[in-house]
Amino acid sequence: MKTKLQIALDLLNGDEAADLAEKVAPWVDIVEVGTPLILREGMEAVRKIKARLPGLTVLADTKIVDGGGLECADAVAAGADIVTVLAVSDEATLSDVVKTAHQSGRRVMADLITVCDIRTASLRLQALGADYICVHTGVDAQKQGRTPLSDLKTLLTVTPPERAAVAGGITLGTVGDYAALRPGILIAGSALAGAEDPVSAAKAMKEAMEI
Amino acid sequence: MKTKLQIALDLLNGDEAADLAEKVAPWVDIVEVGTPLILREGMEAVRKIKARLPGLTVLADTKIVDGGGLECADAVAAGADIVTVLAVSDEATLSDVVKTAHQSGRRVMADLITVCDIRTASLRLQALGADYICVHTGVDAQKQGRTPLSDLKTLLTVTPPERAAVAGGITLGTVGDYAALRPGILIAGSALAGAEDPVSAAKAMKEAMEI
Repeated sequence: MKTKLQIALDLLNGDEAADLAEKVAPWVDIVEVGTPLILREGMEAVRKIKARLPGLTVLADTKIVDGGGLECADAVAAGADIVTVLAVSDEATLSDVVKTAHQSGRRVMADLITVCDIRTASLRLQALGADYICVHTGVDAQKQGRTPLSDLKTLLTVTPPERAAVAGGITLGTVGDYAALRPGILIAGSALAGAEDPVSAAKAMKEAMEI
Repeated sequence: MKTKLQIALDLLNGDEAADLAEKVAPWVDIVEVGTPLILREGMEAVRKIKARLPGLTVLADTKIVDGGGLECADAVAAGADIVTVLAVSDEATLSDVVKTAHQSGRRVMADLITVCDIRTASLRLQALGADYICVHTGVDAQKQGRTPLSDLKTLLTVTPPERAAVAGGITLGTVGDYAALRPGILIAGSALAGAEDPVSAAKAMKEAMEI
C-alpha cells in the first residue's frame, strides 16, 4: 500500500483553492478543504472544488463534534468524499457521522487533535467504524515546537497502517521520517499551499514519499 | 445580575435566521449563529444577521479548536460579538482566541462539550481569560437522555455565575430549574427556533426566567 498525499487548503478563498487544487491534482491523492476556509465560506468551497474536479477525492475538514448526522449529511451533499469528526466527540456523534457517510459511500476521518491517550482513542474510533484515524499537531501547538512524529508511532502500535493518517507541520525536510512509517495518509498544508511554487513542492513531496 | 437568554439558530438558512432573529430580538439578549449554519454558509450568515440587527449581540458558534488567531479574526471581521472555542483546545489556541477577540472588544465563550472534568477545565479557562464558560450537552448526547443541569451545578462551584453559561435541550418546561441557578447565559435552540410560534416561545421563556 502506498501512502496517499493530502494537501490542506486553508488560507485561500474558494476560487483560489479550486485553482490550486486543479494545478496540484496530478501530484496529490486528496484535496482538503480546510476548517478556516469552511468557516469563511461554508460548504460552497467544497462544492466549487468538487464541481471543477469531480474525479478528485475531496476531504471536508468539518471537525464535527455534535449534530453528527446533520452536519455530515451537509458535507456529503456538497460532494465531500471524506468528512472529519473530532475524536473527542460523544459516541453518538461519531456513530451518526460514520452511519451518514457510509450510507452514501463516503468515508470518515477522526481527528485526534488535543487527545492525549492516542491508543485508547484509536481503539474506540476503530470500533465505531472511523475509516481513518489522524494524529494531528495543530498549527497553534506547532508554534510550541511540537510535531506529530512520536504520536504517529504510538498510533501505529494499535492501528492498521492503511487507516492511520498524520498532520501537523510536515515539510519537504521531514516528510521522509513520516513516509518511512507507511501511514495511509500524510497531510501537508503550508509546506505545499504556502510554497512559492506549490506544484513543484507537491511533486517533490510525492516523490520523496515514494523512495 | 439577570440571566441572559440566547437563542441558537441552527436549522435555518442565513436569510431565514436573520428573519427570525429580527422577530425574536425583543425577547432575547443574544442571537447565536449555530455551527451547522456556519458550516453550511460560512461567515456570511453572521454578516447577514449583524447587518440587519447591528444593535443585537451576535454569537458565532465557530467551535474553534485550532488556528485560534486566524479563525477568531474571521469571526470578528464578520461582526461576531462573541466567538466560541472548544474547551478541549490547546492552551495556545485558547490564548490566541482570547487575545484576538479582546483586541477588538469582543468576548469569548469556551464550550465544555464532551469535557468530563468540568471543575479543572473551568479553572483553566478562567485563567486563560475566557469570558464565558459553557456547560453543554450536545444534541447527540441529549438523545441518550442526558441534560446539562448537574453539569451547571458543578460549574457554579468554581465559576462566577455571570461567567457561567448552559446549553443542551432546555425547554419551557425545564427552564425554571436552570434559571433558578442564575447562570450568566441560558441557551435555548430547538425549544425556541423549532417552536410553532418562536416569538411567543421566546417571550414565554424570557418571562419564565424572570420569576
